[in-house]
Amino acid sequence: MRNIQLIIEYDGTNYCGWQMQQKVVGVQEIIGEAIKQITNSSSVRVIGSGRTDAGVHALGQSANFMTESTIPINRIPTALNSILPRDIRIVQAIEKNLEFHSRYHAIGKVYQYKILNNKYGSAINRNNVFHVRNNLDIIEMKRAATFFLGTHDFTGFSSANSSVQNKVRTIVKSDIEVKGDLILYTVQGSGFLYNMVRIIVGTLVTVGIGKIDAECIPHIIQSKNRIEAGATAPAQGLYLQEVLYENIDTLGYM
Amino acid sequence: MRNIQLIIEYDGTNYCGWQMQQKVVGVQEIIGEAIKQITNSSSVRVIGSGRTDAGVHALGQSANFMTESTIPINRIPTALNSILPRDIRIVQAIEKNLEFHSRYHAIGKVYQYKILNNKYGSAINRNNVFHVRNNLDIIEMKRAATFFLGTHDFTGFSSANSSVQNKVRTIVKSDIEVKGDLILYTVQGSGFLYNMVRIIVGTLVTVGIGKIDAECIPHIIQSKNRIEAGATAPAQGLYLQEVLYENIDTLGYM
Repeated sequence: MRNIQLIIEYDGTNYCGWQMQQKVVGVQEIIGEAIKQITNSSSVRVIGSGRTDAGVHALGQSANFMTESTIPINRIPTALNSILPRDIRIVQAIEKNLEFHSRYHAIGKVYQYKILNNKYGSAINRNNVFHVRNNLDIIEMKRAATFFLGTHDFTGFSSANSSVQNKVRTIVKSDIEVKGDLILYTVQGSGFLYNMVRIIVGTLVTVGIGKIDAECIPHIIQSKNRIEAGATAPAQGLYLQEVLYENIDTLGYM
Repeated sequence: MRNIQLIIEYDGTNYCGWQMQQKVVGVQEIIGEAIKQITNSSSVRVIGSGRTDAGVHALGQSANFMTESTIPINRIPTALNSILPRDIRIVQAIEKNLEFHSRYHAIGKVYQYKILNNKYGSAINRNNVFHVRNNLDIIEMKRAATFFLGTHDFTGFSSANSSVQNKVRTIVKSDIEVKGDLILYTVQGSGFLYNMVRIIVGTLVTVGIGKIDAECIPHIIQSKNRIEAGATAPAQGLYLQEVLYENIDTLGYM
């Protein structure tokens, strides 16, 4: 038996997300079907690092599956890509120890959110950015972003219908960078609650247009009240950039 | 009567090009319909700077139209964008003298071509770049690009079924820039023949993979033989970036 990790890029526009929802197909199922074909097996379990919402993109989603197939590891991306639709690409396949689990062993995730801040949006990137027309105070947004750093109870920044019990998460990177009319927000954390990055971005935009001060962020976090934070920014601006793992392979116990 | 110039961004993926072809709608017709609505008129003639092929994108296509409407110039982009599909955006509207003609008065054009040079392509940019898997010799491609500079008969770099008589064009910029796994080719000229930029790019790729030397370019140009040049690179990597006009408004005779 072999345990194969896949690093996956996908355009979330045409999918209901990573996982099947209400009978609508997800990226996971499509990859599973392709794996069955190339490994000549009747069933496969594709374990993702976690879900992404409908419309959210991934540059580095991580998943793993077990197989008896002897297909060489460096042939797997090409073989899968020849079957997969063009909006899903396998960028890497890595042979892991049998214990490796994409979700349980993830120690962090990096997301990037793209805001296009101009007057008329973009025809070409219409499904890949969040278009904000208003003038944004970038300095104030950068200041606001730093308040998310550290360990906090993010109840106020999660969707009200989330069923997760422990809402404490640690954010180690929360940066805003400007490239032309693009505002790139990069956030790295131990994990993220449902809609958490999108609510953080919605709140940063509220700061950027001057509705609230950067200094309000700690109070909003403390309130643990979803109503205090900004609107949920749209899915199409969000990219799962990387799933982080401890380099335990080299320690020899995985 | 007023003469309005529009600067237009569009995603060419879902269009047969700027102009209607064999009953398939083009970007020009769609903009014309939108103009009729906002100006409350039964007909309008939208004059573009020139055609773009099916699948080719534009960041700065230029067009103009005459209207009796009194709609304020700064309201025009917003009014048109509220009607237009999301893959066409009016980024600017400019009031011109009645003599201004988008095609006749264009003195040059700038195109950019995007090559994605990696192993597995891109899910997210699948319709916006030309994916080349081979290792490319960038230094050699940069050298090859310079040979296109100057005034040449580009018969060998135009589609065989082109009906244009004079195939002499002047290229004033022909640059390759690398950004990560993206290779950006920017070319500026007095004008371009049908498929010319895409054949130049196809030839640069032939140089990049080592099939021909950069020094062959002058000979290929001199041969005036389409067969000598490389394949036509796909439309989806090509962007009409800007249409250039002399600043004749300020001279007072337009």
